[in-house]
Formats: sequence, C-alpha cells, structure tokens
Amino acid sequence: MRSILVGLESVFCMLLSKLFGKRTKEVPADASLMSHIFLLRGGYIKSLGSGIYSLLTPAVRVKRKIENIIREEMDAIGGQEVSLPVVLPGTLWERSGRLFSVGSELLRFRDRTSRCMLLAMTHEEAVVDLAESFAQTYSDYPFMLYQIQTKFRDEPRARGGLIRLREFTMKDAYSFHLSKEDLKRYYEKMLKVYHNIYKKIGLPEVVCIQSDSGIMGGDVAHEFMLFCDSGEDSIVVCDNCGYKANLEVAESLIPSFDSKKFLDSGKIKVCLYKIKGQEAEVAVFIRVDLSVNESKLQKLVGEQVSYVNNVVIDNLGELSASFFVDPDSNNRIIFIDISLKGICESNDYFDVYEVNEKHFCRCCKSALKVRRGIEVGNIFQLGVKYTKRMKVTYQAKDNHRDFAIMGCYGIGVTRLIASLVEAKHDKFGPIWPKSVCPWQVHICALSFDDTVVRENAIKLHDYLSKKFEVILDDRDLHIGSQFADADLLGIPIRITISKNNAEKDFLEVKFRGEHSSFKVKKSEILKFLDDFYN
Amino acid sequence: MRSILVGLESVFCMLLSKLFGKRTKEVPADASLMSHIFLLRGGYIKSLGSGIYSLLTPAVRVKRKIENIIREEMDAIGGQEVSLPVVLPGTLWERSGRLFSVGSELLRFRDRTSRCMLLAMTHEEAVVDLAESFAQTYSDYPFMLYQIQTKFRDEPRARGGLIRLREFTMKDAYSFHLSKEDLKRYYEKMLKVYHNIYKKIGLPEVVCIQSDSGIMGGDVAHEFMLFCDSGEDSIVVCDNCGYKANLEVAESLIPSFDSKKFLDSGKIKVCLYKIKGQEAEVAVFIRVDLSVNESKLQKLVGEQVSYVNNVVIDNLGELSASFFVDPDSNNRIIFIDISLKGICESNDYFDVYEVNEKHFCRCCKSALKVRRGIEVGNIFQLGVKYTKRMKVTYQAKDNHRDFAIMGCYGIGVTRLIASLVEAKHDKFGPIWPKSVCPWQVHICALSFDDTVVRENAIKLHDYLSKKFEVILDDRDLHIGSQFADADLLGIPIRITISKNNAEKDFLEVKFRGEHSSFKVKKSEILKFLDDFYN
Repeated sequence: MRSILVGLESVFCMLLSKLFGKRTKEVPADASLMSHIFLLRGGYIKSLGSGIYSLLTPAVRVKRKIENIIREEMDAIGGQEVSLPVVLPGTLWERSGRLFSVGSELLRFRDRTSRCMLLAMTHEEAVVDLAESFAQTYSDYPFMLYQIQTKFRDEPRARGGLIRLREFTMKDAYSFHLSKEDLKRYYEKMLKVYHNIYKKIGLPEVVCIQSDSGIMGGDVAHEFMLFCDSGEDSIVVCDNCGYKANLEVAESLIPSFDSKKFLDSGKIKVCLYKIKGQEAEVAVFIRVDLSVNESKLQKLVGEQVSYVNNVVIDNLGELSASFFVDPDSNNRIIFIDISLKGICESNDYFDVYEVNEKHFCRCCKSALKVRRGIEVGNIFQLGVKYTKRMKVTYQAKDNHRDFAIMGCYGIGVTRLIASLVEAKHDKFGPIWPKSVCPWQVHICALSFDDTVVRENAIKLHDYLSKKFEVILDDRDLHIGSQFADADLLGIPIRITISKNNAEKDFLEVKFRGEHSSFKVKKSEILKFLDDFYN
Repeated sequence: MRSILVGLESVFCMLLSKLFGKRTKEVPADASLMSHIFLLRGGYIKSLGSGIYSLLTPAVRVKRKIENIIREEMDAIGGQEVSLPVVLPGTLWERSGRLFSVGSELLRFRDRTSRCMLLAMTHEEAVVDLAESFAQTYSDYPFMLYQIQTKFRDEPRARGGLIRLREFTMKDAYSFHLSKEDLKRYYEKMLKVYHNIYKKIGLPEVVCIQSDSGIMGGDVAHEFMLFCDSGEDSIVVCDNCGYKANLEVAESLIPSFDSKKFLDSGKIKVCLYKIKGQEAEVAVFIRVDLSVNESKLQKLVGEQVSYVNNVVIDNLGELSASFFVDPDSNNRIIFIDISLKGICESNDYFDVYEVNEKHFCRCCKSALKVRRGIEVGNIFQLGVKYTKRMKVTYQAKDNHRDFAIMGCYGIGVTRLIASLVEAKHDKFGPIWPKSVCPWQVHICALSFDDTVVRENAIKLHDYLSKKFEVILDDRDLHIGSQFADADLLGIPIRITISKNNAEKDFLEVKFRGEHSSFKVKKSEILKFLDDFYN
C-alpha cells in the first residue's frame, strides 16, 4: 500500500475519501434555486447565518479560477490591482455624503474609541482618496485601479445561497479620466472585456442592457444579465431589433386605450405613495390598465417610496380629497404618467409606467417580451459625482484645478459561482465549464479494495496529475453513489476504472452532462485531455 | 512610437510613468519603523485611518507571491483551502464563550435586525461549525483546513504601518485529530513547513520559540520570531545551548540575593494589581531586585490585571493593611514568587518574575540575553478547548461520542510584507528577496527621449517580458531620481540603458543592495536571469 492512502500525508493526491465536506441526495428544505440546492448538496457551501456562508474547497477552487480570469482581463486593459480596506472610517464616506444618504444596507458601527466605521459595500470613496494623494496632475491620468475583495451589504432579502449574499466577493474597478470622451472610450473597452470574461468563464449567454444607476449615481449605466427563469431582475426584450432594457428604465409603445374594456371602472388610476421617513405623499395618475414601476418613481422623487393605496376614476376632477392620507396637506407631489397623453391634459407628463408584454418596441414596433435574469455585472459612467463631492481635483494643463471623471465596474465573483450553476446544470448537479471546474479529471475507481483496480487507478492518477488537476474517488461505495457524487462535483471529464476494464488498453471516459461514455486508448489519454483543455 | 506609450492601452507593458502611486524622498512625519517609512516612501501603502491601509500595486504583487508560497506549503501537507466569513454571527461565538470573554479588540456590532455580529479576528468557532456538519465519524479524521483571508482586530495600539494593523490578511489553518499523538505529530510537521515558508519567502533567520497561548487557549504553543531591534516582543535567548522563550513564559536561574546591595530598602517587593472590571485585588510578593511579568500574572489569574502600586518591606509581617486599595476586603489574591524561596516561607510559590540579562540559563548556566523580535507566525496545540465548549463530537470507532483534538496555525501575511522590509533593506529602500519581489527586472532607461535609448529599452523590455516580470522606467528624469526610485521599488535586478551603452553588445546590470554594476552580454541575459531566478 502506498503513502497515498494516508490522509494528511498525501502530498499531491486528492482523494475523494479525504475531501472535506459531504455530498448528499437530500434536497435541503430551505433552498429553491437549483444553484442553492446543488451547492449545498455538493458540499460547496455551508450557511453560517442569513447571507453569510463558508466556502468549502471545491467552491474555493472554482472561485480562484474565476478571479484569475478576471485579473488577466483587467490587467490586459491597463488595470493595476490594489487592495482597499473592508472596514472604512465613517469620515471618508461623510466626504461623499453617502454616510447618511445610503440606507440600512450600509452597516455602520463604532470602534473601541467610538469612531464611526462602516463595512464597505463599494469603494468609490476609498479610491478617490488614493487619487487625491497620488494623481495630482494631468500627467498622472488616465488610470484604472481594481481589486478583488470581500464586501458586505446588509441585505434585508439575502436569498438563494450565493446569489444574494450579505458578505460576498467582488471585483470592483475604477477608472479616472481627464475627459468624458476618454471615459466613454474606456467604458466601451470595458464592455468588451466584460463579455470576454463571461465567455472565458463559460457564460457566453450574458447580455448587456441599459440600467438605472441607483445609489451609484452618474448618467450612463449598463448591467450584464444572465437570462434565467430564477433571476430576480426583469428585462424587457425585443427579439426583432435587439432592444433590451431593465424593467426599471424600459420604454415601450403602449397600445391605444380600449375604453370598452374598462367601461365599468374608469380610465385613470391614481396610485398613492408615501416617501419613506417623511410626511410627503406622492400621487401618480396613470392609465387604468397600466402599473407604476416603483424604481422609475423613486428615481423621479429621489427618495424611497412605499405604496399606500389606489383608486380608479374617470377624470381628474372626480378625485376626492379623502383619498389622501392627509387631505389638508400641502406636502404632496403629483405625477401624470405619459400613458395619459390624450386621455387627460397636463403641462407635464412623466415616465413612470411599467412596460409589459402587451406593449410594443419603440424602435421596430414588434411585440416585447419580459424575461427574468440574474445581474452578473454592472458598469457606470460616474462622471465627477465623487471627485466633486469629495473636492478632489488635479492640476490641468492650463494650471486650473479640475475634477477627474470616473467610471466604475463591478462583477460579483461569488454570485458568478451560483450563476454558473443556474446556467449549466442537469437534474444530477452542476456542469462546470472547463475553465473554472474545481478539478479537471474525476477518476471513479469502482471496487477500490481490488488490488488491480487500485493499482491502475493510482497509476492513472499519478500519470495525469503531472499535467492536470485530478481527483480520485477511492471510496468503497455502491457504483450509483460514486457516480452521483461525480455528478455533484460536476467535473467535465470522468474516467471509470473497474474490475472489467482496469487491465484493458483503453479508458472509459464520459463527459459531464452527456449520457454515454466512450473509449480512449490509454496511450492517447494525455493528448485527449490536452486537446480538450487547451 | 508604439502603443506601449499610451497609458491604458498598453497590454503587457508596465511603465514606471504609469505605475499608480508616488515615490518620494521625504521621510513621513509619523513613521519611525524602517518598513513603515519605506512602504510609504515607495508608494506601497496609503493610510485610511488607525491601522487601516490601502495597498497599492507593488504591495499587492508582493503579497500575492507570499500567499502563493504559503498555499503551496499548506497543500503539501494535505491542507484544504476554504473561505470563512469575515463577519460572523455573535451566536456562533456565544457557543465557545468567547463572545463575552474576549476584550474590546473583538469588534462587535448589530446588523439591521439588531442581531449581534462580530468581525472575526480568528476562526476556531467557524471551523468547528464546519466539523460539526461534515466530520461526524472517526473516518472523516484527520483533516486540515486553511484560508487566506481578511481579519479585523480592534487594536488599541495599531502602529508601524503593516506591522500592527487593525485590518490585516492572515493565513489561518486548523487541524482536527482523533488523538493527542496525531496532533503532536502533525504539529511537528507544521513547524517544519513554517520554516520552509520563511525560507522560501526569503526570511530564513526566523526562529521558533515557546510561547504563551493567550486567548487561544491550549497547552503547547510556539511563535516564530524574526529578531529585529524594532520588534515589540522580547525573547530570552541562551547563545550557548540554544534555549529561547518569549519573556512571557521564560524561566531562568536567578543569581542569589545580594543583601548588602539592598540593605537600605528591604528584600521583598509587594506589587499590587487590580483585576480589570472587578473589585478583586492581586498582591504579588517578589524579590526586591526583580520585576513582575504581567503576562505571567495574567495567565495565573486568568483575567487582565492593571498595576496599582508597590512597596518594599523586609518581611511579610511588616506589610501594612493600608497599602491595599480596600484594606477590609476579603476579595484579595496573594502570590509569592519563586524568587522568595529561602527568603520567606510559604506553602506555595508561583512563577511570576520577569527574566532579565543578569539571569542564567537553566539548562547550561550560561548568561542569558533578552532580544527584540517581530512575531511572524504562531502555532497552538488547542486540544479539545473549542470542540468541548461548542459541544461538537464525532462518533468514535467504539460508537462513543468524543471531542476532536485541534491545532491551529497562523501567519500574518500583511505583517510579513513589513517584516521582509525590516529584515532586508539598506538606507535607500527595501531589498526584496527574489521569490516575492514585485517585479523581477527593473530597466532604467536614462534619456528615454533619445530614440536609440528608447528603442533599445523597449526591445529589451519586450524580450525579457516573455519570461520575466519587467518594469521599465520610461520617465525623463534626472539619473539620481531614477536610481532612487529603483532602490525604493527594491527589485533584485536593475538594468541601465543609456546613450553610452544602448548600442553595445552588453548590458549594465546591478544587484539591488550591491554597490557596483557589472556587464552581461545581451545574448546571455536570459540565461543569466534564468540562473538567478530558478
């Protein structure tokens, strides 16, 4: 017997019997997303509290490969890797105004000296602080800094395993420019790099859509969406001309009003909202067959709103004062949605309606679809928002002081792990793309207690390990359990060694996700793997 | 002109003119340690608050190389990499009792739902949680898990740049065993691996000494010390027999009492302490010429103590009750130090004295020295402390439930960066060991505006970049400034290209830390670098 079989002694040998973590058949009670289920069942993750997980070795290995692909792509467009703190002093975020403007998803606390600190959920302030120290004249520009780092966001709705975490790993990048044109040019380049990243990690289906910039601010923003029924974002899509937009910013041609259909109720709906933490009320007038998109409304108001009530009327004069929470209040904002153009008159119409599948594309008039998606990245043209608020300037060529123009670019690394499973799985487990698989070859030794099987399996393991990452299932289990675990580990290539084939001159090889195995000559296995992985 | 010269366009080219961060001559006002000074002056780090730093690209590159060396060594003894959360639920630490027993260096706070959370400064609880889920029978043992992760410790005395941070990166490893013997065997192996790590990163001078286990608990603990005048630890050393111990646990032969010398004052010193946060007083009786080591005392008491007062007397009966804070208290612990054996009688003597350079080695009777050192690692035989407190058992062979026996093993990665500078520098800057240098070759192009110099420098850069990490100083600066910055970047090999030598068939090469340069034929430079780096 070889030293390979002694747990902590084995140097380069990964034995499934020694792999920490259990693979299980049971579907966890509290999981509904397939990625959540398979990451739990496959021994990839362990929950420690709402949105807080430990990652086990297979997940760490997938994660590191994703990170290295991202790092390569960031370096390729001149990115310089930095590492910014997880815990930041509150005074830094006071400078940008975000210490107080961001809601309770920003976790603030006091240190031993009662100084206000926070867990960074994004790092614009920290990176502008670097620019302030080190990029004081125009000749220091442009530059791009990035990091791959732990972030914390006190999510009220942590869910789905690694999909929406409170503590997560993110690649965040920040570019600094002297002109809007330079930012735009770089932003376009980053857009391409993002597609490279998704392609390289095995998610070529990701699409880029226009989005709302939210608390980040700035004018132009895009998000990268993986279409997926389990996604929590809604994306409006035109299959004909390719128009795509997040429901939060989507526009459409609304079909003309069918008054017969709504004869009984009226034609105008009034939706009432309260501004959170304030007395003010917001009333939205909208066509009766449409809904208000709260994200659009919040962007208009500039504050968070909560829904109170709605009423249907036939014309504006009909609305009774008693409909409002405080009928006597002067503290009331009224918006008339653009869907009411032609139905009631106003000086000003606003876009607050929610696009739905009865609407048509503005560009080509085709029918629109609303699809679900997971956001796997976002990029923002921030402009001077942060440099201006933090009063950080550089000396321009003509000696004036000017504000640098910023872009920022995020990818959730931990979420990508889950997204890969959502996109690539069958009913037995994940099907890892070859660029990010936890190991490259999974050897199933059936009857490891048989000397011939054992010796051949170990020999093959050692032979392949020189060039590939190999894991060897050395357990004395029923064949069905061994194959089930192989499926849960999701490694692209499985080689089975059994009493029947151990001494033959071929190997029984199967691709993960395909049903039948095929034979590869032992003498050609290295070439076969080389061709597959390179 | 090539694309190489356009900042964010350059793909594989690292130009010093584009490297983010500034190198400066000025010695920072608030820095006294050489590592702190050089890491600031060389553009490696930027402070964001007490003990909180951003790392710039050169530091990130050194750090990653250190991490990869550690990872290799951990994998080589069967370690499995995991990733445990930075933010942990308070309930987890309640199970071990440490939620309340650890002082204010443990940062606790409440999340949006008012749940108690903490920033992990160590991960015993989180890893025992994993063992509870995944290591339930004896056949799952032994195993070792490790991670390289951000930690936060709310240090009251953050100091010295990366030496004592509040937020830092640590490799922490945890091994689980079925028997004490297995733990001891593995512990010895880890001890060797630690020496491998220090040797590989270029710190072969690190020594291993016995230490106090502190808040970690357990019986046996060692720490790894880099001797260094700026270190904050004191180590007792016998140059003759090799005895080494932290002052906190060191023992010695105390020279016999010279009563003449102390005739005026007395022969017994009584030192009074209060137990922090309690009413209780502690009085230590010790020989007048010795001091109490507070770490020894705290370990005896099991609580933190603070010094109140002392008095010198001639015999125990002389001590007046008014010496105590509360003369009537019954809440008083008294310790007679072993130095009083033969001077005053007691049933029980305790080891609380502090060894000093007048003492002799217990093993060989040679004179002892007290040296300063930086702790660059520590390892602990924890035993069952955490598994027992958290009530986590496994099923033993005979079906009984038993507590697993643990070891834990830490290395501060960020501190290692600073320690490398403390150990390896001259008056011009750091001298990075070749295994962890931020880049491998530093090309200084003197007069980059000269076409011949520029073309030859770029050609050399491109040629060497295929196999090595190269940075090219393309700035149009005074030669002194270019060389000064090269010294601050501390790259092992500098190649100078000037108008004088650009077209010659040799290159002017200098080792960092040596005074004179030497010539290497252009045709042999790759071989020269290969020999140096491999």
